[in-house]
Amino acid sequence: MSELFGFGVGHSTQSRAGKTLEVYFPAPVKHPSGAAQRVIREHVSVGVSSLSPASAAKLAGNLIDAGAADAARGCSLLAEIDKPLTALVLENDEAIRSTAEAYFKLQLLSHRLSLPNTLNLEGIFAQLPNVAWTSEGAIGVDEIEAALISARRTGRQLTVHCLDKFPRMTDYVIPTGVRIADASRIRLGAYLGEGTTVMHEGFVNFNAGAIGPNMVEGRISQGVIVGEHTDLGGSSSTMGTLSGGGNIKVSIGRYCLIGANAGTGISLGDRCTIEAGLYITSGTVVDVIDEDGNRVRTAKARELSGLSDMLFIRNSRTSKVECRTNRAAIKLNEQLHAHN
Amino acid sequence: MSELFGFGVGHSTQSRAGKTLEVYFPAPVKHPSGAAQRVIREHVSVGVSSLSPASAAKLAGNLIDAGAADAARGCSLLAEIDKPLTALVLENDEAIRSTAEAYFKLQLLSHRLSLPNTLNLEGIFAQLPNVAWTSEGAIGVDEIEAALISARRTGRQLTVHCLDKFPRMTDYVIPTGVRIADASRIRLGAYLGEGTTVMHEGFVNFNAGAIGPNMVEGRISQGVIVGEHTDLGGSSSTMGTLSGGGNIKVSIGRYCLIGANAGTGISLGDRCTIEAGLYITSGTVVDVIDEDGNRVRTAKARELSGLSDMLFIRNSRTSKVECRTNRAAIKLNEQLHAHN
Amino acid sequence: MSELFGFGVGHSTQSRAGKTLEVYFPAPVKHPSGAAQRVIREHVSVGVSSLSPASAAKLAGNLIDAGAADAARGCSLLAEIDKPLTALVLENDEAIRSTAEAYFKLQLLSHRLSLPNTLNLEGIFAQLPNVAWTSEGAIGVDEIEAALISARRTGRQLTVHCLDKFPRMTDYVIPTGVRIADASRIRLGAYLGEGTTVMHEGFVNFNAGAIGPNMVEGRISQGVIVGEHTDLGGSSSTMGTLSGGGNIKVSIGRYCLIGANAGTGISLGDRCTIEAGLYITSGTVVDVIDEDGNRVRTAKARELSGLSDMLFIRNSRTSKVECRTNRAAIKLNEQLHAHN
Repeated sequence: MSELFGFGVGHSTQSRAGKTLEVYFPAPVKHPSGAAQRVIREHVSVGVSSLSPASAAKLAGNLIDAGAADAARGCSLLAEIDKPLTALVLENDEAIRSTAEAYFKLQLLSHRLSLPNTLNLEGIFAQLPNVAWTSEGAIGVDEIEAALISARRTGRQLTVHCLDKFPRMTDYVIPTGVRIADASRIRLGAYLGEGTTVMHEGFVNFNAGAIGPNMVEGRISQGVIVGEHTDLGGSSSTMGTLSGGGNIKVSIGRYCLIGANAGTGISLGDRCTIEAGLYITSGTVVDVIDEDGNRVRTAKARELSGLSDMLFIRNSRTSKVECRTNRAAIKLNEQLHAHN
Repeated sequence: MSELFGFGVGHSTQSRAGKTLEVYFPAPVKHPSGAAQRVIREHVSVGVSSLSPASAAKLAGNLIDAGAADAARGCSLLAEIDKPLTALVLENDEAIRSTAEAYFKLQLLSHRLSLPNTLNLEGIFAQLPNVAWTSEGAIGVDEIEAALISARRTGRQLTVHCLDKFPRMTDYVIPTGVRIADASRIRLGAYLGEGTTVMHEGFVNFNAGAIGPNMVEGRISQGVIVGEHTDLGGSSSTMGTLSGGGNIKVSIGRYCLIGANAGTGISLGDRCTIEAGLYITSGTVVDVIDEDGNRVRTAKARELSGLSDMLFIRNSRTSKVECRTNRAAIKLNEQLHAHN
Repeated sequence: MSELFGFGVGHSTQSRAGKTLEVYFPAPVKHPSGAAQRVIREHVSVGVSSLSPASAAKLAGNLIDAGAADAARGCSLLAEIDKPLTALVLENDEAIRSTAEAYFKLQLLSHRLSLPNTLNLEGIFAQLPNVAWTSEGAIGVDEIEAALISARRTGRQLTVHCLDKFPRMTDYVIPTGVRIADASRIRLGAYLGEGTTVMHEGFVNFNAGAIGPNMVEGRISQGVIVGEHTDLGGSSSTMGTLSGGGNIKVSIGRYCLIGANAGTGISLGDRCTIEAGLYITSGTVVDVIDEDGNRVRTAKARELSGLSDMLFIRNSRTSKVECRTNRAAIKLNEQLHAHN
């Protein structure tokens, strides 16, 4: 038998019409241990299936007996819920074919079990229904008018927080050591490492994240990952593949600073800075300046993508965009000299 | 008899002091049919009036009998509510003289029954009370302290979502085919066409909107309208008449792209692009460049307002703002050559 | 006996583990009157103490009898709550040593009893626990998983609004004459003066604020204060000491306009404008231009910090950043000529 890729027991919400709107996996498991796999394969079929609370309790017991307490955790947490649960067994990390799988993978990311860009997320948009996320839980978008009127009738306030395929991360996963000033800005599927603070203006999409510790006051687009000790200033922008960056997958290294209202369409290595208010697109023409103030070369920003020790500013005397760097960095990065 | 402009039956919230805070019209009607008008005029007086649930049920029945099921819908939806309803009959689209009228017109916009800038909204600020929008519904701002303490006393959490004259659209209208990642960013009175996605950083004011389909990650100010297939990048800005744009009413055409952190104080026709990070104000001096790279003329951006096929960039070699366009576009747009 | 600095009676939330998560002081008092001080010292010990509702009622009565109705207000408001209250007596404005003190000072600011930068906030981060602010109130971050599962079990929706040391202001203080379009953007400890409107894109940190009247569509960072009649455009940025501004404490005077997507790392006096999209950092080289269009001098922006009557633009012909000012302003501001 091949190794299992993933296992989870979840609690789902259905629309009145019976459609699965969302699935909460409190403790998803990636690559369960050999002992856990044997128990899972014995009790649960591959794919998505229904699991009674009694079966979940029994499964938890068997997993614990087999020494797989980790894999038992999700079952145990949900075993007291008085409705059928959702079991998910994935043999491989394949394209997504169900709502449960989509939610499972998003929760793997937010539980820090997978880094952004390491999971197969093909098909995710098709499998995620658009949902009205309300103060009374997930409601089908075509059922929301009736819900609003029903609330009026009984004197309740029904607040719609968002209408989206993706819920807010914090209603599913609360990672340790993190501060999130406005939870509506973090989609489920975001990866927030230990020590990360996302301020009110920060935003993190699914399959995107900050390794931590980080201060995030800007936007981390889908597919973008930010390294340790990097700060994103207020309203700063990273171009994602879904948001105008085309095929370039932006990544930001460690100890970088992207200033307030600045942005980048190229990747940055470590110890890079973009001054406040400056947007570097891949086509921006940049003068590369050494530490003596001499111009080393002129390049399109995309040629500098991923290099370290760069300081991008708009020279306020010449108004040209400069990349200041030190000789050590220039030497280190052969690429930087490639087109001299 | 003249034609009626509008008709609605709504459910309102009063403050403890008896002031109308808001009115929900689940199915507002613009220009009711002749049959509907005859029934309405027979049963309801012009202006704002109170309607018992029993009268609403009867009115609904009469409208249906007259073949005006559309006009009956609002009555039917609310007829089971056990408190007096609000009926509104408007003969003309005049300046707003009541809270009910203000809410009616805002809901016409969000129900896509009227485009932005087509309704008489004079007096709207005076007729909209400032309200504390809370997890327990609309509360008068001078009654919120008592409500906070009452909640503490009984162990409830009272969350204040906003203090504003305008509520969030989604607590009133959920248009079809729309995604809204953060509902607190869309005011009632926004017009969101089919196929519009508003991401977390997007914002749409009242009397403003996107025809759809659109991707909105920037701010659509009051009075601004965005054409089909246009994308607004993250934090991009459109100047509204309430927000620094003065008398110029900005509109954005179809197939445009306003880059992340960019902005415009002029209107754009179709197929225009503003590169990420560039703000075009009406006074920005722009070199107009043809497809051979030759400068055709130099103009203030306001002279280009509303033209099509323009690409605005800051030339990163010369640092000047350029409007690149093709000869076809130049020929097409006589205005563009007017001051050559 | 020395004068008392502060007095408050509050209602607190404890985590299941017994830790104080937050304290609500409905009517905090700064510098109580002599009569109030005598009653307070007689009934309440200095520092943080527990107060039964009965004692609170008695204290309120005694304060009223002594002619100190203001100081009695907090006791009276909370006296009907059926759990021990928190009393706080501060002799001096010293470094913060308890969660109650931190909350007391943040509420002094939001109640407009203290201006930003006038209170000793040393130690505040250490004394504020990180809290999950939810639709069911404050929950310890290590207790939130259990709460999420408990909510699922009983069919409730538990929404986590934020995970932060600071709650939203409006769940504690609703200042008069203010509109706040998205309450999640205003931290407790913000100072919002009469007549201030904070739009959806506005943000105000703790120990920061707007004197009012103001239109705030940009970000007011920690330590920053904005004068009367000043507008901050959408997404505009003020650098705070916590957010990249280093040691410079930015303040903005009266009748200023910071354009949309613009920003400043220097202070502005009165009647200053920064055009939309322009970010002035302290190191920006600026040509100072008089009203005849002549260059008076070239300076780093930090040399102009705090001056009045400045208009900052990027000249779209030369692409240089200019500070345009009038001769009167130049004469008035000797500093401006200092390095001629």
